[in-house]
Amino acid sequence: MRLAVLAHGKFPDGAKTAVGLLRYSDHDVVAVLDRDLAADGERRVSEFLPDVQDAPVVAGIDDVPDIDAFVVGIAPIGGGFDETWRDDVAGALERGCDVWAGLHYFLSEDEGFAALAEEHDCELWDVRDPPEDLTVAEGVAGDLDATVVTTVGTDCSVGKMTATLELLEAARDAGLNAGFVPTGQTGIMIEGWGIPIDRTISDFTAGAVERMLVERAEEYDYLFVEGQGSIVHPAYSAVTCGILHGSMPDHLVLCHEAGREVVHGYEAFDLLPADEAAALYESLAAPVHPASVVGGAVNTSHLDDGAARAALSDFGDAIDAPAVDPVRFDASDLVEAIR
Amino acid sequence: MRLAVLAHGKFPDGAKTAVGLLRYSDHDVVAVLDRDLAADGERRVSEFLPDVQDAPVVAGIDDVPDIDAFVVGIAPIGGGFDETWRDDVAGALERGCDVWAGLHYFLSEDEGFAALAEEHDCELWDVRDPPEDLTVAEGVAGDLDATVVTTVGTDCSVGKMTATLELLEAARDAGLNAGFVPTGQTGIMIEGWGIPIDRTISDFTAGAVERMLVERAEEYDYLFVEGQGSIVHPAYSAVTCGILHGSMPDHLVLCHEAGREVVHGYEAFDLLPADEAAALYESLAAPVHPASVVGGAVNTSHLDDGAARAALSDFGDAIDAPAVDPVRFDASDLVEAIR
Repeated sequence: MRLAVLAHGKFPDGAKTAVGLLRYSDHDVVAVLDRDLAADGERRVSEFLPDVQDAPVVAGIDDVPDIDAFVVGIAPIGGGFDETWRDDVAGALERGCDVWAGLHYFLSEDEGFAALAEEHDCELWDVRDPPEDLTVAEGVAGDLDATVVTTVGTDCSVGKMTATLELLEAARDAGLNAGFVPTGQTGIMIEGWGIPIDRTISDFTAGAVERMLVERAEEYDYLFVEGQGSIVHPAYSAVTCGILHGSMPDHLVLCHEAGREVVHGYEAFDLLPADEAAALYESLAAPVHPASVVGGAVNTSHLDDGAARAALSDFGDAIDAPAVDPVRFDASDLVEAIR
Repeated sequence: MRLAVLAHGKFPDGAKTAVGLLRYSDHDVVAVLDRDLAADGERRVSEFLPDVQDAPVVAGIDDVPDIDAFVVGIAPIGGGFDETWRDDVAGALERGCDVWAGLHYFLSEDEGFAALAEEHDCELWDVRDPPEDLTVAEGVAGDLDATVVTTVGTDCSVGKMTATLELLEAARDAGLNAGFVPTGQTGIMIEGWGIPIDRTISDFTAGAVERMLVERAEEYDYLFVEGQGSIVHPAYSAVTCGILHGSMPDHLVLCHEAGREVVHGYEAFDLLPADEAAALYESLAAPVHPASVVGGAVNTSHLDDGAARAALSDFGDAIDAPAVDPVRFDASDLVEAIR
């Protein structure tokens, strides 16, 4: 499919979904909308992100070539819809394109968009809207034939989705029949499938993860589950715990951002040292389904090569397992650890 | 207030909410509806439960004396509305009574009940419907002046609500200015206030607990938070984890049912031994807000007195803290442990 991705005023650093689609999606991104960048003249994605698929940066829907779907690739704090985006979304619908969005504000509940979608026979896909028929977990994920690998973190926003997708790619490169189980909006858009676990009813959190695994285990030998938050996060730990016990992983990969010492956005709270974080995840997993931290994935993007290698070495020593930066270097050591 | 409580076919053993209201509510329960029991002739609550407030058991709403509110005091598996209850609920509304229910099926969304409630100026209180404006936690529960005590469990359905309410009563008897923070439907009906934590969006679970604590901490020196599930439950651990980190307790009370060895309803999963469960809760709490297991609350109702005392002694030894059965004996040892 051919996609255009809206990222007004936020590309690339504030546009996690847009960048995720450019980096990992099998779809062709044929335009990124950022009217601020486009106001400076002709710009391209490759000027900002040399290692992802390239596309022109344009000001609005009128500058977008033929597409199959239009994606809202940013989410403001609070997840609302910015009315300055309305003409672009409406223009896409009028051209007959589906629209995907990961906002808390559901486009399908917007009367104007719903009417346009019906008139032009398009689908509005609100990625953050979980299925209505979720249930409590049955406790069966551990019985599946697939080997399950779940990413966990020392904190939120340390690169768990990225690590999961890099690991998936490395596993496929190594010839493994590997599938992805996304749990957040960007991963779901990349995969074209999935349940936004942070939006499920808390009683059904593990059940929603289990449902995805049961479905995917028929198809794959290895399943890589995207983790969320951290098990000692003051706000998000419920989501993390539901994913940990719902996925009943065989192996854990501990993700971290080099140098991070306090919880992102909750700076009064210290992170656990890597060894203690690994031990806590294992202790918590064990009574439901035993799992070991078999490797680490560390985001070293803000360090030079020497410091990055030192950070990986330190992290690996702390968790007594190989640690990689899967974006900067590669993830093959982790693939070896799970085989 | 004067209440009538519907418990058709389920009183007393399958009617947790009805029994909770009889035992712990400040309201007067003036009738329990169980048409099966009432078919046998005149029956009273005291025949089944000698130690709670007494009331007649009646067949339907026509046999109920003057009341202020009518309560659906049972919930079938799945939480649906049983159509055989419709005449009783409608009859209550026609008499001008409010109706409280803890079903997944919301009475306020039932057209017939909504119309009757409007016509007769009654309120339909769907206890399981969380507020719409919940948010993520700010991470401030640990800064409150009140001493926070949260009940945790080796499993679900071991008596955490009961232990919390007995502890509350014992604390008040000891002269402490103590308040209750309910997290489930029965506790919310008893308190007339609260958020059903298992029905919140998982991202907002800790935030919903925090919101209740912030509100109640202005009023009380001690707050007793009703726990849910268990931190190693294959389906419900997300709820447990959100309550643990959202409440940031100073003290934990570990609840257990004597003799329980496997997870209720998930018998393939063993419970953790008490010492390991206590250690795991403490390890998980510590990075967010340090808390110790200061006591145990053990349900020994199915044992004789000697076996009960032995079970309490064993449990206390395992957690290295006093263990009580707060219903059978009393909770004063736990009150001493938190002062």
